[in-house]
Amino acid sequence: MAKCLVTFLPENISVEAEQGTSIKQIANSIGIALKSTCGEEGTCGRCAVKVKGGKVINLGGNLSSRLRKTGHVLACRTLVEEDVVVEIPKESRLDEHQVLVEETPEKGVLAEKELDLLSGYEFDPICRTVYLELSPPTITENASDFTRLTVELRKHLDCQHVRMPLPILRTLAETLRGADWKVSVSVVRFRDTAHVVNIQPGDTTALSYGLAVDVGTTTVAAYLVNLHTGEVVGKAGTYNKQAIYGDDVISRIIYANEPNGLERLHEAVIGTVNELVDKLCTEHQVDRTNINVAVTAGNTTMAHLVLGLPPKYIRLDPYIPTAADLPPATAKELGLSIDPEAWVFSFPAVASYVGGDIVSGILCTRVSQSDQMTLFIDIGTNGEMVLGNRDFMMTCACSAGPAFEGGGITFGMRAMKGAIERIDIDPTTYEVTVQTIGRSKAIGICGSGLIDCIAKLRDAGIIDRTGKFQPVPSERYRMNDESPEFVLVWAKDSGIDKDIVITEADVKNLIRSKGAVYAGIRSLLKMVSMDLEVIDKILIAGGFGNYLNLADAVKIGLLPDVPLEKYEFVGNTSVKGAHLCLLSQKAFEDALEIGRKMTYIELSAGTTFMDEFVSALFLPHTDLSLFPSVTA
Amino acid sequence: MAKCLVTFLPENISVEAEQGTSIKQIANSIGIALKSTCGEEGTCGRCAVKVKGGKVINLGGNLSSRLRKTGHVLACRTLVEEDVVVEIPKESRLDEHQVLVEETPEKGVLAEKELDLLSGYEFDPICRTVYLELSPPTITENASDFTRLTVELRKHLDCQHVRMPLPILRTLAETLRGADWKVSVSVVRFRDTAHVVNIQPGDTTALSYGLAVDVGTTTVAAYLVNLHTGEVVGKAGTYNKQAIYGDDVISRIIYANEPNGLERLHEAVIGTVNELVDKLCTEHQVDRTNINVAVTAGNTTMAHLVLGLPPKYIRLDPYIPTAADLPPATAKELGLSIDPEAWVFSFPAVASYVGGDIVSGILCTRVSQSDQMTLFIDIGTNGEMVLGNRDFMMTCACSAGPAFEGGGITFGMRAMKGAIERIDIDPTTYEVTVQTIGRSKAIGICGSGLIDCIAKLRDAGIIDRTGKFQPVPSERYRMNDESPEFVLVWAKDSGIDKDIVITEADVKNLIRSKGAVYAGIRSLLKMVSMDLEVIDKILIAGGFGNYLNLADAVKIGLLPDVPLEKYEFVGNTSVKGAHLCLLSQKAFEDALEIGRKMTYIELSAGTTFMDEFVSALFLPHTDLSLFPSVTA
Repeated sequence: MAKCLVTFLPENISVEAEQGTSIKQIANSIGIALKSTCGEEGTCGRCAVKVKGGKVINLGGNLSSRLRKTGHVLACRTLVEEDVVVEIPKESRLDEHQVLVEETPEKGVLAEKELDLLSGYEFDPICRTVYLELSPPTITENASDFTRLTVELRKHLDCQHVRMPLPILRTLAETLRGADWKVSVSVVRFRDTAHVVNIQPGDTTALSYGLAVDVGTTTVAAYLVNLHTGEVVGKAGTYNKQAIYGDDVISRIIYANEPNGLERLHEAVIGTVNELVDKLCTEHQVDRTNINVAVTAGNTTMAHLVLGLPPKYIRLDPYIPTAADLPPATAKELGLSIDPEAWVFSFPAVASYVGGDIVSGILCTRVSQSDQMTLFIDIGTNGEMVLGNRDFMMTCACSAGPAFEGGGITFGMRAMKGAIERIDIDPTTYEVTVQTIGRSKAIGICGSGLIDCIAKLRDAGIIDRTGKFQPVPSERYRMNDESPEFVLVWAKDSGIDKDIVITEADVKNLIRSKGAVYAGIRSLLKMVSMDLEVIDKILIAGGFGNYLNLADAVKIGLLPDVPLEKYEFVGNTSVKGAHLCLLSQKAFEDALEIGRKMTYIELSAGTTFMDEFVSALFLPHTDLSLFPSVTA
Repeated sequence: MAKCLVTFLPENISVEAEQGTSIKQIANSIGIALKSTCGEEGTCGRCAVKVKGGKVINLGGNLSSRLRKTGHVLACRTLVEEDVVVEIPKESRLDEHQVLVEETPEKGVLAEKELDLLSGYEFDPICRTVYLELSPPTITENASDFTRLTVELRKHLDCQHVRMPLPILRTLAETLRGADWKVSVSVVRFRDTAHVVNIQPGDTTALSYGLAVDVGTTTVAAYLVNLHTGEVVGKAGTYNKQAIYGDDVISRIIYANEPNGLERLHEAVIGTVNELVDKLCTEHQVDRTNINVAVTAGNTTMAHLVLGLPPKYIRLDPYIPTAADLPPATAKELGLSIDPEAWVFSFPAVASYVGGDIVSGILCTRVSQSDQMTLFIDIGTNGEMVLGNRDFMMTCACSAGPAFEGGGITFGMRAMKGAIERIDIDPTTYEVTVQTIGRSKAIGICGSGLIDCIAKLRDAGIIDRTGKFQPVPSERYRMNDESPEFVLVWAKDSGIDKDIVITEADVKNLIRSKGAVYAGIRSLLKMVSMDLEVIDKILIAGGFGNYLNLADAVKIGLLPDVPLEKYEFVGNTSVKGAHLCLLSQKAFEDALEIGRKMTYIELSAGTTFMDEFVSALFLPHTDLSLFPSVTA
């Protein structure tokens, strides 16, 4: 195969590639990550690039006429033929994601509720490190090394059996003698057995760590926890490297079916966690081999990919995961760069579309132990929700679509630097003020910005209750091809030299998304014949909530119109529940119980959801009596 | 490094080797196995070869003057310098060992007692294969694949938990769907958990196999057992490939300490078992991946080497193994070429010199369940013995030395083809009649032949009670250097063109060996203040017993002088106990119990053994009252 020299602008980085390779693959190979929702199928239109010189083969695909006209092509559907120069626009780049594991909320935004994480649980870490001083063997006291160790260990631990993996057993004799019979033994207890995961000379009890990981489709967040003190030593987050294979779970599932797709997705997510481990260990001067246990929580597809299980049937009717109760694995089995014998626990899933991240959320918010009737909502690409208390728990998932994560929206983007997160529209002048993440020039709009945008467009009378645009006397209102749009940021003020607009199609898209979430909530209530009034508390979870303006969300009919004081923003409960399980063995047992106890409602099985969905395709709803405060 | 062409005779096989490589290593590399007891230390003098041409560097070492005079060198201590021609004498070769897993005993030899293996146990294999017909999932009956399988599995198995290794879980979705939800699941039960080791489409319950393995220092024997019927499908045996690194456990332990020594020994023994698996599977048309479980029994050192555990401290005071209760491992961890997820159980050891082979023997002979006071003896390089019944069990090991396996005896050899196993000496003419294994020309003498030899030399008055030679009027009696010897086979009748003799030193060696065994038995009895009379039954185990003439063994004072009907020859109880555990899960639990229940007596800890040993250095003993039938 002939080689071509491919130069990427504006970096001006050149790389040799084989003729016939796609521009996207070449960019990936040198670490330039492009957006993609479709798993390189050419259907999402998000990896647009501009070929500035040289010959390529353009296989076409779904690209907006706007971009086509300006000379863009899809990087995933364009193969290099000779030396080429390619410009990658900012909006096609997968920038370093702003994963805020903590932030000070702004005025008007619901503050994240501080959870008393251990409340009701004893501090009894899932991995314990015990310092032992053994008596050396003699000719009359000649028990084997393993027996000598376990007899002493049992004095400190309540467990019926002790198991030691071969690699540790193989070095046991030298470890014990080299340490003069004084060692620290780290064990993970599972059922009636203590599994030895590490043995170190001397007293290293204070140096044993655990990793709590929230494996999100978009972002991965990790806490490094000292298992001796229970303290969080450090927090880190980054985007899921799987993003180059598709933005949402569906495109990942499709990609997993490609040759080597599953392996690549598995390696990508493990590589993401390893990157966080690297960062945390370097920053906090922790030896990675002292991380003796990990607990991960993620949606069912992510959990499958972490373990290398094929997610194929999650997507196909009747939507069956390989496993919901996911088995613990060892770090070396998964390729995690921590103590190779460390156990990696996965939160159990409930069903294909209600995963361990939700179970984790229910655990750490104590919904399953509460007397209060609680509605727990986690809105991402899917809206997952749980209704219940200590007596029962019902759960369902509705396909909100990627709109709230910026997918399918002309200038939609994830909650990254440069994303518009807050919008104000003057109802008389129609002038717009925006606020972006990182206070940099706007390059797009993220989920919370979009919710704000819909609310403000409606306030200003620019759209009607169905989302249809109403002409207003402002140059910001204009026609694009055959449909109307509204300019939020002029090209000169934007970071991409283009007008950032919201189109009527975008608005309709968002209405469908918010309608799905609201219909999900209504369906769940109907299933148990309950009214909104019985709900004592609504918990909003997920990174999405970080930026959410609650009043706006109610105004557009995304969230139920109940007194705002019933709402609590609980943040990334997925990682918090994982953290809790590191601190309490009992908590993880409770998580398994929660997974089994939740009743999953498959919304596609009846007509309730569809009826509710259609009713919710208005701003805020067809039935205005459901939104008294909005219509008041 | 320069290359040398090394030619081996009489095969006339040539091979290129690096200058400075030892002849032994070069021979090994092309599959010519040479004898060795010392782990290539140059001390055992058994790898003698003759350099017929070319230059070598002879590093010396321990070689008899007889061989030195005839131009022999030690292969392990001789390095090639240029192209050389090397002749390998028959007696230096590690011939294919005659491992008889079954044979018809000859007249005068104790017949192997047929054990009723399962007696008292239910047929409840340690690995069960269950055929399941699952109902396919629907939108309302949407449990995960794993849950669907385990719910059904639990109807057939009594177990609290089900665990499935990741590799099986990773293919579960396709396996179930490809099999139209009808699968056979093989599970190994361990404690309260059923571990899935295999899933196959359709009903394959009749095709699940187990492997019972006796891992001896010298030989390895394996039974292939159908786990559906309990039937032994085939038996096979071969010599332990570790033999090229040393003949006995001590030289193996020393070799394990060399760089890569442990890995080589581990691979050698696993390779040996794999060879047997190959043979059995080919002969009986069994798919190796249908062998779903293995149970191995061996002495403590062999058990360590099977698992890749360092045996170093077994040999050093105070003689501590890494583990006595050895953990189960998976076939893939060990490199066994059967179902990669198969569990490999090891019989527990009691101490460094009383291993799982003895526990296995006690299990299958029901010593631990018997009312009869039983003495169980397994004589190899070490003599291991157990005294007890259902109430108590004491055990000890005495270093019999390698004499009974042919080590340290001028023409000693293992029980291989051409070994003298039976001798008669006419007390008037001193003419000798010998019988060899395989009825071929004699090339040496094996253990049973040596016992016979001592008895007959004494009968004929050629040696006195201390083993000292007495001149007799026969040309067979002669002086060699400064000490006497007796010719058993003349060069013209032998298979090695040399006179096969037994020397005074050989006889003294054998007396030390038999003395050690007898002293062990006496020490054990003293420890519990019992007399020989209380023993109801003496069980002789091990391959050694196959050829043993009982009357001779008593006559030389190796075995106690009790009525011969109290003796039972129970054969290779190590492999039989392993077989039993394949058939009964309960039996394996009993084995663990036996391992814990036996009290180990370290003979080197007191003076009793030494006193008894000195007393036993006569034929049959200093105290003739102990051998009334011999002196009568």
